[in-house]
Amino acid sequence: MRRTDLSGADCPIARTLDVVGDPWTLLVVREAAFGVTRFDEFQRRLEIPRNTLTARLDLLVDHGVLRRVAYQERPPRYDYHLTERGDDLRPVLALLLRWGQRWSGLADREPPPVVLVDADDGHELELELVDRVSGRALGEIDVARVVRLPGQPPRVDRATFTT
Amino acid sequence: MRRTDLSGADCPIARTLDVVGDPWTLLVVREAAFGVTRFDEFQRRLEIPRNTLTARLDLLVDHGVLRRVAYQERPPRYDYHLTERGDDLRPVLALLLRWGQRWSGLADREPPPVVLVDADDGHELELELVDRVSGRALGEIDVARVVRLPGQPPRVDRATFTT
Repeated sequence: MRRTDLSGADCPIARTLDVVGDPWTLLVVREAAFGVTRFDEFQRRLEIPRNTLTARLDLLVDHGVLRRVAYQERPPRYDYHLTERGDDLRPVLALLLRWGQRWSGLADREPPPVVLVDADDGHELELELVDRVSGRALGEIDVARVVRLPGQPPRVDRATFTT
Repeated sequence: MRRTDLSGADCPIARTLDVVGDPWTLLVVREAAFGVTRFDEFQRRLEIPRNTLTARLDLLVDHGVLRRVAYQERPPRYDYHLTERGDDLRPVLALLLRWGQRWSGLADREPPPVVLVDADDGHELELELVDRVSGRALGEIDVARVVRLPGQPPRVDRATFTT
């Protein structure tokens, strides 16, 4: 039987994980999202081996998630800033944070070690993924994915829930 | 100077990545979310080496993301189902999908290879992360994270945006 499923080449999740699917990579993006721009500061905050950090920064620049901005010429030194593509990983980080707060041992810690707040009024964010078309939360929607692979009829996979 | 930053032990993102921060692991969860329960079906869909799949399923069971349900006694055979904790990774997968659709080469594909739809009426979901307290989208909020580590004063890191 011909293989009919999602190869890495066709699945947007697999392609995303190809860029950011390693813990260090997303932790570098996390720090960039909160203002870290310099190699030494990434290194200090993450306690990441320097060669690993170099490799992850290069990867993120190659994939257009970070861009280099020279701040010194001799020797050349760079700041790293998120691009628009990198900014768009913020919601992913926010949901990873929420999952970790709920489901890792951190749920018992009071106060929690990390919370996201609105910088204007300080209220803690309660984030929810919503479908803008219907206004409904993702959890209330009976979701299906439609998979269209070249030369094959579309396939519809219904989501299955435990609850 | 004493280290004042987020160790893996205190950061909910790092803890989350400790569970799911590897591409195969999230791809296994992706298939489980769309109805795959059996080892051979995971293996066929993902084209993953069998020993890698065994290791990832064991990891996900150990972390309470999947649970085993016996469907045959001799020899013992199991279905794998998402737990409530596993269900809560669906929003993460949905945002990884959205990011890949926007930012990988798939953005040019018409029709896109994978879309999420409402199974009831078939409309394509347009997902957005919203703060339930203020009703505003994450992208419209000036976000800060408050970090509280044992024995240290709280630290507030403002988010930085490129745009």
